Amino acid sequence: MTIKRLLFGRPLKSEEAEAEKMPMWKALPILSSDALSSVAYGTEMILLELATVGAFAFSFSLPIAIAIILLITILIISYRQVIDAYPQGGGAYMVAKENLGMTCGRLAGVSLLIDYTLTVAVSVSAGVLAITSALPFATPYIVPIGLVFIWFMVWMNLRGTSESGNVFALPTYLFIFCMLALVGKGLFDWITGAGQATHQVSIPTALPTSLTWFVLLKAFSSGCSAVTGIEAISNAVPYFRNPAQRNAKRTMFTLGIILAVIFGGVTLLSQVYSVQPDPTGTKTVLSLVAEDAFGHGIFYYIIQLATMMILVLAANTSFNGFPILSSIMAQDKNMPRMFSNRGERLAFNYGIVTLGVLASVLLIVFHGRTEALIPLYAIGVFLSFTLAQIGLVLKWRREKSRGWHKKAIINGFGGVVTFIVVIIFSITKFKEGAWIVIIVTPLLLWLITKISEHYDNVAEQLRFELSENVLPNKETIVIVPVAGIHKVVASTIVYAKALTPKVVAFYVAFSSEDAKKMEEKWAIWNPGVRLVVVVSRYRSVTKPLMEFINRVENRYGNGMRITVLLPEFITHKWWHRLLHNQSGFLIRTLLLRRKDVVVSTVPFHLKD
Amino acid sequence: MTIKRLLFGRPLKSEEAEAEKMPMWKALPILSSDALSSVAYGTEMILLELATVGAFAFSFSLPIAIAIILLITILIISYRQVIDAYPQGGGAYMVAKENLGMTCGRLAGVSLLIDYTLTVAVSVSAGVLAITSALPFATPYIVPIGLVFIWFMVWMNLRGTSESGNVFALPTYLFIFCMLALVGKGLFDWITGAGQATHQVSIPTALPTSLTWFVLLKAFSSGCSAVTGIEAISNAVPYFRNPAQRNAKRTMFTLGIILAVIFGGVTLLSQVYSVQPDPTGTKTVLSLVAEDAFGHGIFYYIIQLATMMILVLAANTSFNGFPILSSIMAQDKNMPRMFSNRGERLAFNYGIVTLGVLASVLLIVFHGRTEALIPLYAIGVFLSFTLAQIGLVLKWRREKSRGWHKKAIINGFGGVVTFIVVIIFSITKFKEGAWIVIIVTPLLLWLITKISEHYDNVAEQLRFELSENVLPNKETIVIVPVAGIHKVVASTIVYAKALTPKVVAFYVAFSSEDAKKMEEKWAIWNPGVRLVVVVSRYRSVTKPLMEFINRVENRYGNGMRITVLLPEFITHKWWHRLLHNQSGFLIRTLLLRRKDVVVSTVPFHLKD
Repeated sequence: MTIKRLLFGRPLKSEEAEAEKMPMWKALPILSSDALSSVAYGTEMILLELATVGAFAFSFSLPIAIAIILLITILIISYRQVIDAYPQGGGAYMVAKENLGMTCGRLAGVSLLIDYTLTVAVSVSAGVLAITSALPFATPYIVPIGLVFIWFMVWMNLRGTSESGNVFALPTYLFIFCMLALVGKGLFDWITGAGQATHQVSIPTALPTSLTWFVLLKAFSSGCSAVTGIEAISNAVPYFRNPAQRNAKRTMFTLGIILAVIFGGVTLLSQVYSVQPDPTGTKTVLSLVAEDAFGHGIFYYIIQLATMMILVLAANTSFNGFPILSSIMAQDKNMPRMFSNRGERLAFNYGIVTLGVLASVLLIVFHGRTEALIPLYAIGVFLSFTLAQIGLVLKWRREKSRGWHKKAIINGFGGVVTFIVVIIFSITKFKEGAWIVIIVTPLLLWLITKISEHYDNVAEQLRFELSENVLPNKETIVIVPVAGIHKVVASTIVYAKALTPKVVAFYVAFSSEDAKKMEEKWAIWNPGVRLVVVVSRYRSVTKPLMEFINRVENRYGNGMRITVLLPEFITHKWWHRLLHNQSGFLIRTLLLRRKDVVVSTVPFHLKD
Repeated sequence: MTIKRLLFGRPLKSEEAEAEKMPMWKALPILSSDALSSVAYGTEMILLELATVGAFAFSFSLPIAIAIILLITILIISYRQVIDAYPQGGGAYMVAKENLGMTCGRLAGVSLLIDYTLTVAVSVSAGVLAITSALPFATPYIVPIGLVFIWFMVWMNLRGTSESGNVFALPTYLFIFCMLALVGKGLFDWITGAGQATHQVSIPTALPTSLTWFVLLKAFSSGCSAVTGIEAISNAVPYFRNPAQRNAKRTMFTLGIILAVIFGGVTLLSQVYSVQPDPTGTKTVLSLVAEDAFGHGIFYYIIQLATMMILVLAANTSFNGFPILSSIMAQDKNMPRMFSNRGERLAFNYGIVTLGVLASVLLIVFHGRTEALIPLYAIGVFLSFTLAQIGLVLKWRREKSRGWHKKAIINGFGGVVTFIVVIIFSITKFKEGAWIVIIVTPLLLWLITKISEHYDNVAEQLRFELSENVLPNKETIVIVPVAGIHKVVASTIVYAKALTPKVVAFYVAFSSEDAKKMEEKWAIWNPGVRLVVVVSRYRSVTKPLMEFINRVENRYGNGMRITVLLPEFITHKWWHRLLHNQSGFLIRTLLLRRKDVVVSTVPFHLKD
C-alpha cells in the first residue's frame, strides 16, 4: 500500500476533481504539444513534396503555407464553436453523433482514437531516433528506450492531470520560446538584410508548366500534417478549470496564433535563407533554418533539444485526449464501461493504460521505426475534421439562429477542404500504409457497434419495473462435492446444513473399492447428510457431477434452486496457489457456464 | 467435443490401463531410443577428446570403449536389480529414497527430470540441424521446425503410450537394423581385408609420455555420454505389460547387448577404417564409417536418415520417462499433486505438457542451438547412476541376503566409476555450461522440498478424526452488493431471502444525490430487505464493502457466518466477458483472500 502511495500519490476525493482541473497555463502546453510538434516538420513536408519537380518550385511553399494558415483559422473558429455547443467535451465525436447520427459519431471517435495511438508510437520513436542519432551507442536499445518514455508518460498521467501538467509544461514552453525567438531573429535578419538572409522572397503569380495542380495539392496535403493535434482541446474541455468553456476557447485561440506565427514564420525563413530540404533526413529543415539564423552555437543546440522534447511530448497530448474521449464514448456505451471509471487519482486509468499498451505493441512490432506510420494518422484526424465541419453545417441549418448562413459557409468550406485532404492522403499514401487505416477503421467501427449493441441488449434483458412482483422464493438444495473426509469438508457440510435441510454430499470414486471405503467412512462419521457416490470409469470429476446435477434438476424441476458449495484453499504464498484448487476452478467455471446453479466458494485459509 | 475426440481418440476406462501397457517389442524402441541415439555420437566424443593430443592417441579409443562397455554391463546388472527391488518404477529415485533418505531421492529425481528436459531440447535441435544442413533453405525456421517436432511428440504421447509406441517403434528398429548391418559389414571387411578396411588394429600396451591419465579419463568421461538413457527402462516399469518386472528386465538385457555391439563395433570400425574425427562437425564419425563401409550409395543415405530420426526420437524416451517419474514423485508429494492424475487416455497429461513447455522454452531461448546443453545432461544422469549404485550397496548391506558381498562390490565399483565421471564432467565442462546444472539442481531440489513441506503442512491442517464432534451450526447473514435495481438484483435478493431471513443489500454511491436517489427507489420497490447505502468519496467499491463486512463481523462476532452474494454475467460470446464482471471479479478475489466469508456466485445467463 505504501509503495502504491509513493508511486501514485494519495487517493483523491471526488470533490477534489475541480482542483485537479487545469488552469490555462497548464492546459495550453499539455493539449498543444501534439499540434506544436507537427509544426516542427510541416514546412519540411511541403518542401520535400515540391522538390520532386525541382528546386524552382520552392517559391510555392509560401502560398501553400498561407492556404494552410487559412485552414488553421477555419478550424480554430469551428472548434471554438464546437466547444460552445458541446462543453462536455468529445469534440468531433459529439458533433458528429448529435448531428450526423451515431454511426458518424463512432466513426469520428474511432478515427481519433486510432490517431492518438499512432501519435504516441510515432512521436516517441521520432524522439528516440533523435537521441540515438546523437548518441549512436544507444541504437540497439531503441525499443526499450521508447518503452521507457511511453510508460513514464503512463505513470505521470496515472498520477493525475494536474501533476503531469507540472512536469510536461516546461519543455513545451521552451519550444514555443525557441520558435518565437527563431522567427523573430529571422525576420530581423530579413528586414535588415543581415547574415545569411540574402534570398529574394517572391510570391509566384503563374504556374510553370512542369508544376501541376496535383503536385500543389499533394504539397498542400503534406503540409496539412502541421494541423494535426489542433482538435485535442475540444475533446478535453472537461479538463479545464472553470469557466471551462471560456478557458478552452481562449486556449484554442492562443494555440491558433502560435501555430500560425511559427508555421508561417519557419516557412518564410526557409525561403529567406533558401534552405534545401535534405531528402536523406539527416538534417531537418527546421535545424537548417536555426543554423542559418543562430550559427552552430549553443542556441542552435537548445533548439535541437527543445525540438526533440516536443516530439516526445506530442505523445502526452494523446495521453490526455485518448482517456477523456474514450470515457465520453463509454458513457454512450460505445466503449467498454470501465473506460468511464475514474481511478484513485481521478484519472481515467483504463484509457491511459490501454493507450500505453497499444502504443508499446506498435513500437515493438515496428522495432521502433514507425516513420511508416506518419502518413497514417493524418487521415484519421482529417476525417474527424470533416465530420465535425459537416456536423456543424447541419446544426446551423437546423437551428437557423442569427447569421447561420455565414457560419454554414465557413464550416462547409472547411469540410470540403479537409475532405479533399483525406482523399489525397488516402490515394497518395495508400501504398505507404494508408490501407492499414482504411482496413482498421471499419473493423474498429464494427467492433464498437457490436459492443454498443451488446450493452443495449443486456440493458433490455435486465430491465425491471419497480412495481414488478418479486418472484416467489424457491427452495434451495445444496450439493457439496467432497474429495474425502477432512476438516474443510466438515466445515463446509456444517455451513451447508445451516442454509437448508436439503444437503447432499457428492463423491467421485475412481474404483469400486474406493467407493465402498468412502461409504463406510461416511457412515462412521455420520454428519447427518446423505452421501452420493459415483464411480467414474474415465477418471473425470466434472462429468459425473454435471450428470448428477442434471438428475437433480429433472427430479425437482423449476421449484428448486441448486447451490454447489466448493471449498477453496486460500494460500499464504502466491505460488502455493498452483498446488491447489485445480479441479475446484474447473468445476466452478463449467458449472457457471453450463448450468443455472449458484456456486458458493467457501474459503479455507491455509496457515502456511 | 468431436474435435477433441478426433485429436486424442475416445476416452479410456481405468480398466483399459492394462491394454495400454506396452509389450516388449514396443517398449524396447520407445525406452531405448535415448540410449541408442547416444551411441550415434559416443565414439566421436572419445576420438575428439583424444585428438587434442594427436592422432597417435586414437588407438586408445578401443580400450576406452571396452571400459565403457564394462560400465554398461555393471549398469545393466544394477538396474535389473533395481527393477526387481522396485517394480513400481521410479528407478534411481526409488532406490535413493528408500536407502539414502528422502533428500537423496529428491536429488536423484530432480537430476533425472532435468536430464529428460535437456534431452528433449538437445535431441530435437540436433535432429533439426541435421535436416537444415541437408536442406539449407530451411535454416531460418530451425526453432519453428523444432517446436513442431516437440509438440508432435506431446500430441502423440497424449494419445497414450500404446499408440505413440506404434508410431515411434519403426524408426528405432530401422536404426538398430542399420547399425547392426554396418557393424556386420565392417567386421566382414576387416576379417577379409576387403575395401577400405586396411588399417592395422592394435591395442596399445604402454602410455606415451604426451598422453596423460587425465586425458584418458576425460576421453572416457566423454565417451560415457553413450551410456545416458540406459536408466529409462527402470523408471517406466509400470508401462510394461504383465509380467511387467520380467519383461522390463529382459528388455534391459536386450538393450545392453545392442548397445555393447553397436558402440564397440563402431569404435572398432573407426580404427579399422582409420577415420579422423572432423572437429568442425560437418561429417560425423558415424557417417564416415558408414561411407567407408558402404560407399556413397543409397544405404549410406538410409543410415543418415535413420541417425537423424533416432536423434529426434531420443526425445520420445523423455516423454515416457518424465511423466511417469513425476507421477511417482507426485504420489510422494514431491511434485504438485496433479502430476499423478491420469488423463482421458490414461497418460500423465500434466507431465507430458510440462515437458513440452520446458523443452520449447529451452529451444526458443537457445535459438535451436542447444549443443551447449549436451555436456549438461550427462551430469544429471551420472549423478542418478551414482545414487542408485550407492543405494543398492546400502540395501545389500542392510538385507545381508545370500551373496550380498558380491553384489555390493559390483555396485560399489559402479558407484565409484560413475561418481568419477560426474566429477570429471563438472570440472572439465564447468565453463561450457555445467555450472548451470550445478546451480539449477539445488534450486529445484529446494523447490520440491518446499512443495513437499507445504503438502505435509496442509495435511496437518486438514487432519480430522471421524469421531470428532461436528461444530455447531452458525447462523448465516447474507450481504448482497447491488449496483442498482434490475432483474439480476431482484433474482439475487429472492435467492438470498430463501437462504436466511438475515439479508442486507449494500450499495456504494459516488455522491450523496446518488445515495438519496437509490434509497428512494429502494423504498418504492420494497423487496423486504434492508438497504445500506455508503457514499464512497474515493470512488472505490471494494473498500466500503470491506469496511462494512468488518462492521458486521465486529457486531456479530463468531456466532455468525457471513455470505456475500455476487451476480455474474455469463456471456454468450467469449469476448463479451471483457465487458462485464470487472468489479465482481475484483471483489470476489479480495473477499476470499482477506476475509473469512463465503462468496456465492449467482450466474445470470445473457442471451446474446
